Amino acid sequence: MARKMKTMDGNTAAAHVSYAFTDVAAIFPITPSSNMAELADEWAAQGRKNIFGQRVEIVEMQSEGGAAGAVHGSLQAGALTTTYTASQGLLLMIPNMYKIAGELLPGVFHVSARVVGANAISIFGDHSDVMATRQTGFALLAESSVQQVMDLAAVAHLSAIKGKVPFLNFFDGFRTSHEIQKIEVLEYEELAELLDWQALDEFRRSSLNPDHPTLRGTVQNSDIHFQQREVSNRYYQNLPEIVEGYMAQITKLTGREYHLFNYYGAPDADRMIIAMGSMCEAIEEVVDYLNAKGEKVGLLTVHLYRPFSIEHFMKYIPRTVEKIAVLDRTKEMGAFAEPLYLDVKAAFYGKEWVPQIVGGRCGVGGKDVIPSHIQGVFENLKAASPKDHFTVGIIDDVNHISLPLGQDIDTTVPGTTACKFWGLGSDGTVGANKSAIKIIGDHTDMYAQAYFAYDSKKSGGVTISHLRFGKQPIKSPYLINKADFIACHNQSYIYNYPVLDGLKKGGSFLLNCSWSQAEIASKLPAAMKRYIKENDIEFYTIDAVGIAEEIGLGGRINMIMQSAFFKIADIIPLHDAMRFLKEAVAKSYGNKGEKVVAMNHAAIDKGIHSIVKIHVPADWKDALDEAVQRKEIPDFIKQVLVPMNRQEGDQLPVSAFLDMENGTFPLGTSAYEKRGIAIHVPEWVADNCIQCNQCSYVCPHAVIRPLLLNEEEFSAAPEGFCTKAAVGLKDLHFRLAVSPYDCTGCGNCAQICPAKKKALQMKPLATQLGQASLWEYAMMISPKVTPINVFTVKGSQFEQPLLEFSGACAGCGETPYAKLVSALW
Amino acid sequence: MARKMKTMDGNTAAAHVSYAFTDVAAIFPITPSSNMAELADEWAAQGRKNIFGQRVEIVEMQSEGGAAGAVHGSLQAGALTTTYTASQGLLLMIPNMYKIAGELLPGVFHVSARVVGANAISIFGDHSDVMATRQTGFALLAESSVQQVMDLAAVAHLSAIKGKVPFLNFFDGFRTSHEIQKIEVLEYEELAELLDWQALDEFRRSSLNPDHPTLRGTVQNSDIHFQQREVSNRYYQNLPEIVEGYMAQITKLTGREYHLFNYYGAPDADRMIIAMGSMCEAIEEVVDYLNAKGEKVGLLTVHLYRPFSIEHFMKYIPRTVEKIAVLDRTKEMGAFAEPLYLDVKAAFYGKEWVPQIVGGRCGVGGKDVIPSHIQGVFENLKAASPKDHFTVGIIDDVNHISLPLGQDIDTTVPGTTACKFWGLGSDGTVGANKSAIKIIGDHTDMYAQAYFAYDSKKSGGVTISHLRFGKQPIKSPYLINKADFIACHNQSYIYNYPVLDGLKKGGSFLLNCSWSQAEIASKLPAAMKRYIKENDIEFYTIDAVGIAEEIGLGGRINMIMQSAFFKIADIIPLHDAMRFLKEAVAKSYGNKGEKVVAMNHAAIDKGIHSIVKIHVPADWKDALDEAVQRKEIPDFIKQVLVPMNRQEGDQLPVSAFLDMENGTFPLGTSAYEKRGIAIHVPEWVADNCIQCNQCSYVCPHAVIRPLLLNEEEFSAAPEGFCTKAAVGLKDLHFRLAVSPYDCTGCGNCAQICPAKKKALQMKPLATQLGQASLWEYAMMISPKVTPINVFTVKGSQFEQPLLEFSGACAGCGETPYAKLVSALW
Repeated sequence: MARKMKTMDGNTAAAHVSYAFTDVAAIFPITPSSNMAELADEWAAQGRKNIFGQRVEIVEMQSEGGAAGAVHGSLQAGALTTTYTASQGLLLMIPNMYKIAGELLPGVFHVSARVVGANAISIFGDHSDVMATRQTGFALLAESSVQQVMDLAAVAHLSAIKGKVPFLNFFDGFRTSHEIQKIEVLEYEELAELLDWQALDEFRRSSLNPDHPTLRGTVQNSDIHFQQREVSNRYYQNLPEIVEGYMAQITKLTGREYHLFNYYGAPDADRMIIAMGSMCEAIEEVVDYLNAKGEKVGLLTVHLYRPFSIEHFMKYIPRTVEKIAVLDRTKEMGAFAEPLYLDVKAAFYGKEWVPQIVGGRCGVGGKDVIPSHIQGVFENLKAASPKDHFTVGIIDDVNHISLPLGQDIDTTVPGTTACKFWGLGSDGTVGANKSAIKIIGDHTDMYAQAYFAYDSKKSGGVTISHLRFGKQPIKSPYLINKADFIACHNQSYIYNYPVLDGLKKGGSFLLNCSWSQAEIASKLPAAMKRYIKENDIEFYTIDAVGIAEEIGLGGRINMIMQSAFFKIADIIPLHDAMRFLKEAVAKSYGNKGEKVVAMNHAAIDKGIHSIVKIHVPADWKDALDEAVQRKEIPDFIKQVLVPMNRQEGDQLPVSAFLDMENGTFPLGTSAYEKRGIAIHVPEWVADNCIQCNQCSYVCPHAVIRPLLLNEEEFSAAPEGFCTKAAVGLKDLHFRLAVSPYDCTGCGNCAQICPAKKKALQMKPLATQLGQASLWEYAMMISPKVTPINVFTVKGSQFEQPLLEFSGACAGCGETPYAKLVSALW
Repeated sequence: MARKMKTMDGNTAAAHVSYAFTDVAAIFPITPSSNMAELADEWAAQGRKNIFGQRVEIVEMQSEGGAAGAVHGSLQAGALTTTYTASQGLLLMIPNMYKIAGELLPGVFHVSARVVGANAISIFGDHSDVMATRQTGFALLAESSVQQVMDLAAVAHLSAIKGKVPFLNFFDGFRTSHEIQKIEVLEYEELAELLDWQALDEFRRSSLNPDHPTLRGTVQNSDIHFQQREVSNRYYQNLPEIVEGYMAQITKLTGREYHLFNYYGAPDADRMIIAMGSMCEAIEEVVDYLNAKGEKVGLLTVHLYRPFSIEHFMKYIPRTVEKIAVLDRTKEMGAFAEPLYLDVKAAFYGKEWVPQIVGGRCGVGGKDVIPSHIQGVFENLKAASPKDHFTVGIIDDVNHISLPLGQDIDTTVPGTTACKFWGLGSDGTVGANKSAIKIIGDHTDMYAQAYFAYDSKKSGGVTISHLRFGKQPIKSPYLINKADFIACHNQSYIYNYPVLDGLKKGGSFLLNCSWSQAEIASKLPAAMKRYIKENDIEFYTIDAVGIAEEIGLGGRINMIMQSAFFKIADIIPLHDAMRFLKEAVAKSYGNKGEKVVAMNHAAIDKGIHSIVKIHVPADWKDALDEAVQRKEIPDFIKQVLVPMNRQEGDQLPVSAFLDMENGTFPLGTSAYEKRGIAIHVPEWVADNCIQCNQCSYVCPHAVIRPLLLNEEEFSAAPEGFCTKAAVGLKDLHFRLAVSPYDCTGCGNCAQICPAKKKALQMKPLATQLGQASLWEYAMMISPKVTPINVFTVKGSQFEQPLLEFSGACAGCGETPYAKLVSALW
């Protein structure tokens, strides 16, 4: 019987399964785990029932410390209790974890594993949080993919109940928690059948209850404490077989074979990797790739990391293996090796069979683990003395321990179409792509995967949507490195980002821009032109902004871009795509009235018919940019900030961070980050202005700054530099300067303006750029200040210190921008 | 030059050194670390100066979470910051520890390592707390003795500053933190000279400061986080040599040789133990003992556990070693081996030299690690296939992994006198012994060690003082197992505790009792008589209670017992002892007036002259007790509670705790724990009583219970069962029953009594025992209740449910005592 399939992310899969087995969920939100708790909360509010026919009781606490305490108390009261957390949140739960485990309570923590903050914090995935709990007595169960989360989260709950040991069930934050996959769903009826109802009954009966009181949590002396810790051993000894048993049941249900340790690869492998988490899916791809080339390699995926059963561990490793590389996705300062590596070596020590074992770190801090990293690891194992204690995925020119990256190979299953979309945070690109993947996932027999890369800037930052589609299940738990299709939804990006990186030979590129075929050659950077020509790229443009304005959709270009994508990428028949898109629009916008639906339907039609196929002349292959004289800028900006902003931070070597070991970053860097991302920026209408300066006060990016100029300064201003007489300040000229390149287009300024006729009006960025030079001028009027982002306001209405500032800044060389801003506001 | 010596415990040593290097101490108390913070607080209040000539700033926070946050913030503000903690307190600091380490801040945590609570909590020492932080990036430095705390705590501070890595400096809770030793003291001037002032200056300059702002604690994406974690490696790579360097300096100062790993034993050892913490001193003793017998054994003491330097580790192990046992003082449920064991095996894996390595747990939950345990471990290593994954120190008849204990050997350095004192919590025995050890330690050239074993009952529990004296430095970090002298300060103990255990042949036994030579034979248990005779024990008695009453000291027997001890044990010339004792009295009680001093001086004189040497007749060797018929009692009481109360809990096998794995203990056990420890208990004076029942309300041990009897019940009462007419309740008789065996003699009842003439008067226990039978009668007047500690109050002034109670309790069999009490109050 074909199982029901659904397109969802890892968090949703975990929430789906955990809800089934949960009486009480004690929660506190932390990225990237929040969605699990939010879903449970939402479902409970909607009255969804768990396998016991009851609504889950949700308790939101004041911190993860409180959530863990509530879990403990609720379990002792006989309720199956669950929580969801990550990173520092998990660390706050550690004290209670010892208690929950010590008291043999079947709680389950679902953890979207995430970096623990050290010299910097990060919301992305590695195992440093989970590894900080490996000594608590919790069982640790790991999954490598969204489908595995669906399959094995159930094993965690079932085994906790039967085995009387709490479980920490984890999968990689963002990579698995936020990756959308079309997966098979386990139904609650099936899960209910797997439950050990007798064990559950025992658990409920042994809860603390005033009707039959008992004593727990005694304070013990050294006479009996040791003995009383040893008596629990058998629960941990029995657990591996219990977990293996439930895995067998899941295997029976799903046809997917699960063990505590899953071996994948050549049965007679000579080299092998041992790893845990999402990277295992990438390793499997590389194993297939290399074995197809005649190599003999394999992978042991660790699912049950604690209790660590050496017996099961040894069972699956082919005796032909001579060399092993253990990959840990964590870094433990001070340990001479990472935890899984320590375990593996210790497990093999003293055995007759002594393979060569090396180990290293990869994927730390959420670093994408891609096939070339893995290929590099297998390559390293070929050496007589493979490099040990290595890192992979970075260039380490300080410690010199990084492996050279392997070949840039394409290991994604053949027949998969990979599509990448460059968007602007909150421009609708991500939402449209989520809708696209559901259309394809839920309406066709195709598998689909989506991952949305965006940085912590969120709204206003760059978003890159990575979509894969195909007839075969998709592993590839990494960003698209080989794309069939790339769309760029913001024309400014072509100057700032390596938009075409990874586009396959003959692939398609869709650029949203206002340029005609005639203009395009003069607009594109030379490198882009060369890439397009050399790689026979099918190059399309569409003026989505223009079309949206024309239809009346304002800046909402996502429907236009989406239909253009369906047309060009040709993943499903265009006719179907149009129908599904229009149905989706009707569903989403139906309640906003016929007109809105009609506009969006028009956008879909226009999207298909307004694509312009660009003719690529032969001379593009020799294109060269004019030499540009760049201003002298500080090393940090040149060497770190600019590459990071260009989305090329992954290539920064370790040495780029020398002297920043303790997490110190220079200030004043936004002065060099003129992003120009706003579609609409404010224009100052001098006649309407009442000089209240509220617009300046509310601007979160210091875009709007009131200036006062004396006569001398005013007379030195260029033409078009309009001002008005300053209120209450004789002989001074007032002006609101606007820095369009800093603006994100939020419109707060225009909204707050109390003038009868708004003195700030949002206009398309292009029309405002003339102001930029004026702004530059304003910045330059004092000869003493540093040339960027620092300015003098002479005769200002502000306190005296401000006036003194520019000179001092230029003099001391210390982050003048920050000082200026703090002095102003 | 002879160094200054002082008698102090490990906490004081750590506080002394840490105070020197601390600008700010952010504290929160937790046993057994509290004293460190309290001392720092006290010294700061007294105006003591650190090496910078400043008073330490003490900040007490609301929890250890807050303390860790304050440490982090204070360090970032450029203040050398310290905290003191243990166990769950340390766990709450984990999130901040990652930050402090990541930001390379030279904070130091002094940890008196203590059990982390799981199925039970414990205040005693093991390494489970410290091991939970081994992944945080803190350096972990371990000490084995009080002297080492003095010597190496400085290394922690110095290395943190020079190496820019925070330190967790730890030693075993209670065993080292509370063991008093005569040690050499490091002076602040010496410490100041060792400081790397330039590194300190760098630290202070790089602090966060609004005058030169910078950015720390950035949120990073996956592009740079990995690289930026790797750039810090060198601080950890450099640290071992920095620590080794400071150890060399300390060695130079003190003559005591310190390395990251200290080897002790035969240079050509074939067997070796690797361990950490206080047990190492015991192992050294056994190493000496076995090597003296021609064996070839050794010990590697781990001082710097993190960063773990394999290079240094390997350097000190003799290449002749064939077998290694790694001892961990922690238990990690779910790991297949404990942390140090994992590290050692992983460190040796793949090396050409492949010794056989086994490992096990000992000292878990504060279990005393004694020479026979260690001898057992070395014995195990003799086998061709030594037992692996063992425990030692307990009898494990469930998992069958415990090593048989070795021989009961005496490894304490020859010439050491070991003295053991059985006292009652708060009877002054411990205080007197602390004074004795200071007298000997500070006034003579003898070394001295003291450890005070008492359970969590604190006041009113048993205390056992373990004192050792000798011309050589004393290791023996365990309770006295071979005593030269034993004193028993409470005569009831001879029935309840194995008071004479471990008394050497020919040793001395001093019993405080009111019995004459003529009476003694009929009072002593037969086993005691046999032991005394068979082991030629010098047996003395003294009626200290009688003497104290006579002098006017009431129950304060400690001075009398102490002078008797000095007379019998003959450790220092009696004349000196008397003088020092009298000086101490004058110092301690001088401010209480001449009379008090005179009384105590009289006590000292009396103590010496009132000792009675008991003649031990030959027939004691054949003494037999009369057979006693014991009531049927529940298994738990028989098998667990009674042995624990007899101080024989150490001998309980693991199986005693089957079915209590989750930390569940039965209730109602105090009904079986009639300790009879009070010297004075309340007597009810019916005529004075106004029947307010406040005495019953304030009694913390439910000793005093108001009863109401009807005519029928009253007429069935035995003679002497006096009552008075109940106020406001016609035809009922009122009585306050007193349970003398439950009383701790606190006197709250007598104090609260509002009657003009007190209705409750404290009288010596002996005179009250007649009441016990009356109490038994009161308990028995209802035929329905269980015979112990449950009674019926018919026609009570309390609510009706109480009246119903007795029948229900007898019927359901559920912990009636607790219910009764909760219903009453």
